[in-house]
Amino acid sequence: MSQTVTLEEIYSPIDKQLDAVGDTILEILANPNELTQDVVRYFFSAKGKLLRPALTLLGAAVKGADPAAEKAALRLGSAFEIFHSATLIHDDIIDSALIRRSLQTVHLKWTPQIAVLAGDYLHDQAIKAVFETRNEQVLELFLTTAGEVCDGEIRELKERNNFALSEAAYVEIIDKKTASLLACALTGGALLAGANAAEKEALFRFGRNFGLAFQIIDDVLDLTGTESEFGKTLGADCMAGVLTLPFIHFFSSADSKKRETLKALYQEEFSAENFQLVRAILREEGSIDYALKRAHAFSDDARRELRIFEDTPARRSLERLLDYVLERNK
Amino acid sequence: MSQTVTLEEIYSPIDKQLDAVGDTILEILANPNELTQDVVRYFFSAKGKLLRPALTLLGAAVKGADPAAEKAALRLGSAFEIFHSATLIHDDIIDSALIRRSLQTVHLKWTPQIAVLAGDYLHDQAIKAVFETRNEQVLELFLTTAGEVCDGEIRELKERNNFALSEAAYVEIIDKKTASLLACALTGGALLAGANAAEKEALFRFGRNFGLAFQIIDDVLDLTGTESEFGKTLGADCMAGVLTLPFIHFFSSADSKKRETLKALYQEEFSAENFQLVRAILREEGSIDYALKRAHAFSDDARRELRIFEDTPARRSLERLLDYVLERNK
Repeated sequence: MSQTVTLEEIYSPIDKQLDAVGDTILEILANPNELTQDVVRYFFSAKGKLLRPALTLLGAAVKGADPAAEKAALRLGSAFEIFHSATLIHDDIIDSALIRRSLQTVHLKWTPQIAVLAGDYLHDQAIKAVFETRNEQVLELFLTTAGEVCDGEIRELKERNNFALSEAAYVEIIDKKTASLLACALTGGALLAGANAAEKEALFRFGRNFGLAFQIIDDVLDLTGTESEFGKTLGADCMAGVLTLPFIHFFSSADSKKRETLKALYQEEFSAENFQLVRAILREEGSIDYALKRAHAFSDDARRELRIFEDTPARRSLERLLDYVLERNK
Repeated sequence: MSQTVTLEEIYSPIDKQLDAVGDTILEILANPNELTQDVVRYFFSAKGKLLRPALTLLGAAVKGADPAAEKAALRLGSAFEIFHSATLIHDDIIDSALIRRSLQTVHLKWTPQIAVLAGDYLHDQAIKAVFETRNEQVLELFLTTAGEVCDGEIRELKERNNFALSEAAYVEIIDKKTASLLACALTGGALLAGANAAEKEALFRFGRNFGLAFQIIDDVLDLTGTESEFGKTLGADCMAGVLTLPFIHFFSSADSKKRETLKALYQEEFSAENFQLVRAILREEGSIDYALKRAHAFSDDARRELRIFEDTPARRSLERLLDYVLERNK
């Protein structure tokens, strides 16, 4: 599907600040240790979607932030991107992933040891930068979120190869693992700009529902994407034994013969032909469509939360971000 | 050498609170996730020396903490112990260590993946508990310390197998890796009890010098200890290529023939006989004695910092802790 809405357009109300995220990240992570600097420069040389800083900046913008709050939001959003990157570096060790943002993963480019420590360093510096906003609500929200992210990952690890995983348990895992930080990023920006309790809650719910839609689509792209666009190894979830929504739907809906066929394919080495076959079986059962339908439902829930905000470019960007996520192929 | 001073005696002014550290740690780490709970209970079933919580409690006691500050210090000290444990769990992955506190290491008992995440979880919960003291000075000190610990570890990793490592570089590494958190623990307790700037600085310097002495002795015990008392695999530093003070002294003092002999032994697989031989060579060169002498010097520097405090049981405990560290065999 071709994108009708681009990130560039969505980010236009905050593009100047977003351009400064890369330098702000390097500033926060400045360190006299050469090895640390090499890892930092390498990892951030590949630009991600900068979704977390963009949400923080949009959260501030939707509340009409003054220049001081805008500046604080730039630093906060950069801290969230660093925290997210720490998680990715550790995740890639855990998943033995080969590629991240079209670059070799840190644990392969250097060693798993360096990747563990680099992740820890990014993690600590991110928390330090959040602390430096001196906003207690933001720090509290972030520390709770950090615990949830980790909890979600441990839970995911525990549920690997559990073919009986329920949709509710899956949603809880991706809510903690992915949606919580997206919600924290958006809400954090709005808090810096003085959001009241109702606005804070609405943006937090937007962020969580947006995050659920985002992760479901990410899981679908792991099956249906093209590697060159997605920038990650396809089928990585399956290879790691992570059961995603299409599989959960399949195993609760298909007959026992089909279930056995897919289980056998799932547990074998993932060859290119097997992978094609898995996709075809999931499509035939309507499991890919089911996952897409659930992503749309979460997106609709998110959209409703924006009604209390004025119709500004920032609010429109949040709405279009929902469209983008549903249509994206990377 | 037999101990003339025991930890039990040293800890007597704070023994009741120290007894509560185990439960406080489990409280801070409470989590509905069974796997997380299993790892937490397993890791903390083996009691360490509880040096960090003891320092926090002594830091509070040396300032004559009221009951509220004592309670806060108990929680803070427990948080530092959790943070330290997170570092140990990640270190053991990095060093492929087999034993920790006479138990199998987490990455072997479970998997390296679980050990990465468990370390992250402990790390996050520790920071959250420090934040909950709502003492900005303490939080700022701790976040700076967390960055230093990580930095010291990355530096150590980079300098592995560097036979030209200078003593100054070694001291900088252990200062960041070990001494910083010990200083932070002691100073943090005193800050909760209302220490002024001069007291804070004195305790911070005590902690760093104490920490340097502690780590040098730890490095010496890696060579000269007995595994059953030390509770860790002996020779672990050598096997990992970490050059410690006895080696640094040796390579800057011995003649080139001796240096080549030790280098060859160092780089071979560490068999029991080789290990005995390495010890004998280091002893003959006076390199073990040199390291002990440096530890004594740092300990003397630490002791001087206590002069500004009243002669209380807590202050005497800090003094005797210096004696304990120099005499310890575990």
